[in-house]
Order: sequence, then structure tokens, then C-alpha cells
Amino acid sequence: MASYQSVQWVDGKVRLLDQRILPHEVVYIDYSDYNELANAILDMVVRGAPAIGVAGAYGVALAAWHSPVSGGPERIAYLEKAAKNLRAARPTAVNLMHGVDRVMALARAHAGDDAGTMRELLLTEAHAVAEEDRRICRAIGLNALPLVPTNAAFIHHCNTGALCAIEYGTALGIIQTAHENGREVFVYVDETRPRLQGARLTTWELKQLGIPHAVIVDGASGYIMRERHVDLVTVGCDRVAANGDAANKIGTYNLAIVARAHNVPFYVAAPTTTIDLTIPDGSHIEIEKRAASEITELGAEKITPPGTAAVNPAFDVTPAEYITAIITEEGVAGPPFVQSLAEMVARAEARRAAGSGAL
Amino acid sequence: MASYQSVQWVDGKVRLLDQRILPHEVVYIDYSDYNELANAILDMVVRGAPAIGVAGAYGVALAAWHSPVSGGPERIAYLEKAAKNLRAARPTAVNLMHGVDRVMALARAHAGDDAGTMRELLLTEAHAVAEEDRRICRAIGLNALPLVPTNAAFIHHCNTGALCAIEYGTALGIIQTAHENGREVFVYVDETRPRLQGARLTTWELKQLGIPHAVIVDGASGYIMRERHVDLVTVGCDRVAANGDAANKIGTYNLAIVARAHNVPFYVAAPTTTIDLTIPDGSHIEIEKRAASEITELGAEKITPPGTAAVNPAFDVTPAEYITAIITEEGVAGPPFVQSLAEMVARAEARRAAGSGAL
Repeated sequence: MASYQSVQWVDGKVRLLDQRILPHEVVYIDYSDYNELANAILDMVVRGAPAIGVAGAYGVALAAWHSPVSGGPERIAYLEKAAKNLRAARPTAVNLMHGVDRVMALARAHAGDDAGTMRELLLTEAHAVAEEDRRICRAIGLNALPLVPTNAAFIHHCNTGALCAIEYGTALGIIQTAHENGREVFVYVDETRPRLQGARLTTWELKQLGIPHAVIVDGASGYIMRERHVDLVTVGCDRVAANGDAANKIGTYNLAIVARAHNVPFYVAAPTTTIDLTIPDGSHIEIEKRAASEITELGAEKITPPGTAAVNPAFDVTPAEYITAIITEEGVAGPPFVQSLAEMVARAEARRAAGSGAL
Repeated sequence: MASYQSVQWVDGKVRLLDQRILPHEVVYIDYSDYNELANAILDMVVRGAPAIGVAGAYGVALAAWHSPVSGGPERIAYLEKAAKNLRAARPTAVNLMHGVDRVMALARAHAGDDAGTMRELLLTEAHAVAEEDRRICRAIGLNALPLVPTNAAFIHHCNTGALCAIEYGTALGIIQTAHENGREVFVYVDETRPRLQGARLTTWELKQLGIPHAVIVDGASGYIMRERHVDLVTVGCDRVAANGDAANKIGTYNLAIVARAHNVPFYVAAPTTTIDLTIPDGSHIEIEKRAASEITELGAEKITPPGTAAVNPAFDVTPAEYITAIITEEGVAGPPFVQSLAEMVARAEARRAAGSGAL
């Protein structure tokens, strides 16, 4: 298990690992004021969709814990205001909304309870949100295990580890689970331009986990596959269409094409919550364009001549035909993805309907 | 024509454009002492194989120009010492040896000539070395012209422009020639990690030339080919094997695979001097491994955790099957390359044997 934790509840406070200064400093910050926690989410002290969702859930519990009013309509109004502020911290982060709303729904249903009961109820629910993420990431790692050979050289893109979740993470969770289950693992870490999440964060996580690795430039993956041995590629994803087309960090599509050219299996780790059966294919996924300065500057240093234009998509879409399998918490979905993904989503819905989070 | 020049002879001095501080400052430095010029080559004030070769040739002329001895065995000894120091500046740069040796051979053949004659002879020979580079780069650009559509969107990797040659350059010369011949050109510039020659130098050259462009991260080429329109990819090369396998800056191979997946023609610009018929294929090309710090640090900034390993090959080899054509100064070589490249080299040798540098 990782020796670090992105988000945790400690003695009536929410403790975040400050990801802004990783890998150079490891600093935890405790929040007892939900407004300060909302600002921390805004400032990206914590990042990664699942981690943000859990932080939001704990944020509502935090507001109840330190509420200046102990009951009645004033208390629920206070919590509603806290929920609104927390949601506003990253308005496009769906997980944040889900985390906040799940705890807030319970608060509304128990508006008449006394202060102590309310506190415990909301904290228990926030813990359940965190536990759900733990369960999903653990299941993804275990489901992938039969696909990982005894000696396994991975290429991994971006950061998909415990830093952006609560434990294990998704694609990096597959690597961690394999390592913990006796596989001899080596990871080539794509540095992941332009924001260098691979070089900054994935290397740091692998170091904490004691997993051997080396960073490479994104353009070197073909060289590595050709000149060395690579067994599999693992990446995360931001959204998967019904046909299996998967949006993920820019550079993923190139890596998938290069993997195919070398007959290296290409696996996408995806909680079923990222599978969107309402869109038939990847052409319906809008790609966020980010500032040119992410490419033209690095820290304080200007790289290009002044005024240089850049095209800087945050994500790309890897067509399903390049994906060997999509690993979910409900199982491994292979082609044809239209059927297998629908089955994974149906299983997750049945589990939720049965009210059971246990595997 | 470019408004800047990497290497030139001006009034008894060698003038270099200081490439160490591009694109942020444009500074020319004049050298009248051959030792200072050798140091400048060592310090990479000038870079790029053809440009270094020309600088070396001018360096011997410079020594003759400012020789403290005007004739006899002392003068030739002085010139031999200058040639030795110049060669030692970048001991693995074949072009530097060739440039220095060509002028030095003439000096030896005319050891008895008076000071004024010697000066003029050596300067004329150095000018001929520069003119030969001009001729080759111009011919590459013109030979490629029929392959460039009226509206042409390029992806270009690394820096292959006039900065590393005397005029036009190789792969960037193709783009410049197309622009000057009425093509509507747009260039997506691979930033070219780890040393960012694309972001730093190619953008600067394109800006000087008035050619529209935008920089992209190397991992975005697939996205660009899929979401926008790309007509062709042009890259340079460091060495081409008899079968057409081509070594070039790391990231070239990935780009070639991605271009093939999108049916985008992939062209390699190669002076015949880079074609090595003595090696049957790319497996005989040794790839230089460079320091991890090129990836783990950027300028003064550390990126990765301390002690992070990196695999940092300077080059990769693109197999011939991914190359649409190799553009040389003698013509366009298509598959099967074993025959077409041999023909290009034979033409160049015939031209040299005929003693004619003119097209």
C-alpha cells in the first residue's frame, strides 16, 4: 500500500497532500474550515477526479463538524451554502458534484437530527465515498492481474496513481497491484508533455512504492518498444464512448498507434463511471483546448520566440480499434466494446441497485 | 532568402550567429582568431553538421589570413596546428573534419605560394565549401517541390533549417522553398523533446521567414492529423543505411508510425553525404545515449524527484518501410531504396569526379 494519501480525514480535519509542490516537497495541509478546503481544491492542492470527489464529500462533513449552528433551518442553510461553495471550486468536475451531492442528500434527509448524529452520519457517508473509490481502484488492479506477465515491462502515460484517487489509482493501480502480487515490474514513464505529470508525479509515486522505473520523452516510446522489451501499455481515461473510443491525456493516441505497430497490448483503465453509453463514439467528446503558454513556457522560462502560436489540446481520443481491452472494476471488457461496455455498466448499476458496495 | 546567416565571412573575420541564446536574443559574434573560433564551435555558438563544416573551412582560411608568418615551413606548420585545433573542437563531427581537411589540403599543395595568394586561395576554397552546402540544400528544396501541394500543411520535427546549414537547410529548406515558390504553407512544429530544438529554433526560423506555424507537443501529432488536415511530414536525418533505414532525432520514428496510420506521406531530406552504403540497414547505426538531466531538468528547474533514472537516446532509426521518399540533392529516391539510394550516391560521385559543383 502507498505510504502517502491524497485526501484523508484526521481528527475533525481534512488533510490534503499538496500536489502543487510535488515531487520536490512532501507537505500535508490540514483544513478545518470548508471555505479554505474549497480554495485548496480550486488551487489544485488536490487534483485527479476521484480525489476531488472525495475531498468534496469530506468538505460537507467538515462543514457539519464545525457548524456554528447546531440544528434547525439555519443549520441546513449553512450546509447548503458550504455545498454550493465546494461545488463551485471546480465547476466542470463531475466527481466533485457527485461527492458533495451524495453527502448533502443525506444531510437534507436528516435535517431534524441533533448535531452529534448529523456529524457522524455525514462523516460516515463521506468515508463511504472514499471507500467506494478504494474498492473500484482495487478491483481494476485485480481484474488486470491475469493480463500481466511474470516479468512485466510497462509503458505508462500521464499520472493515474493514488495521487488522483484514494488508494491505488487506475492505470498505475494496475502496476502497483501487479508489483504487490509478485510480478517483476519495470515502468517506462512517459514524461507527458506539456504538463509533465509523468515526470513530476508518476515517478514520485513509483519511487514511494519502490517500483523500478525510468522516465522517457513521449517521442521515445517507439524506440523503447523496438530496442528494448515492452510487454504492455497502461493508460487511464477521462471518458469512454459506447463503442470504446477513449479520451485521455494528449499523447495517448500516438502511444496507442505506436503500441499497435509493435504488437504491444494497449490497456485502458476505466471505472464504469467514466463510461458514457449516451455517446455512440469518440467524435461526440469535446476536447478542451488549453493555453499556449503550457507549451511555450516552462516555469519561469520562456521557450519559444514571443508571440509563437501553439495548438494545445488537453486530451485526444484513441479509437477503439487500437485498444486491446478496457479494464473496469466490474471486469475486463474486450472487443466488441459496444456489448462488453454495456455489460460492465449494467453490472455496476445492478450492484448499486442492490445497495451493495462490496465486491 | 533568410535574413539571418549561421556562418559567414565578413572583412577578414568569421561571423557566427550565436545559437546558444536563440530565440531570445539575436547576436552575431565576429572571430579573427582561429582559436577563439574553435572555442565557439566547442561551445556550440554554431551547431548543425553542415554549418560546423563550413565554420571549420573558414577557420583554416582565417588562420592564413591572420598568420604571423608569411611563408615557408613555419607557415604551413602554423596552419597545420590551426587545423588540428579546429578539428578537435567537435571530434565526432564528420562534416567539421571534411571542411577543415578540404581547405588544408589546398594549403599543403600551395605551401610555397606567397602570403597574398595563399590567403585568397584558402578563402576561395572555404567559400566553395559554403557554396556546396548552399547548392545541396537548394537542390533538395527544389527536388521536393513537385511533392508539395498548393495548400500544404506540414508537420516538421527538430531543427533542419538554415541555422544548421548556410542557406535553406534540409527538411526545413523544403518548406522554405515551397513557401518561396507560391505554395500556401502552414507548419505544425514538433517541439522536439528533450532539447526543444523545434520550439526554440524552428519557430524562430519560421518567424524570420514569415511562414505561418504553430508549435505542438510531440505527442499531439496524431491528434493534429486526425482533427485537422496534414499533407506531409518532413524530417532531416543524421545517417541513412543502404536499405533506406534513417537515423534522426528521437521522436522521428514515432512520428513516422503515426503518419503511416493516417496515410500522410513521410519524407526524409538527406544530402547524399549522409547516405552510408557501407551499412546494409539501420541495425548498424549506433545510437548515442545522452545525459538523463536533459529530461529530468529544464534550465535551472528540476522536474523529477532526485535520482530519477531516464533513458535518453539522442536518435532513433525509422525503418525504410515507413518512409515515402528520401529527398537528396540528386533527386527523389523512392522504394526500393537499395537501388534508388545507390543511384543518388553514384550521381553525386560522378558530379564530384567531373569536378563540377554546378547543378
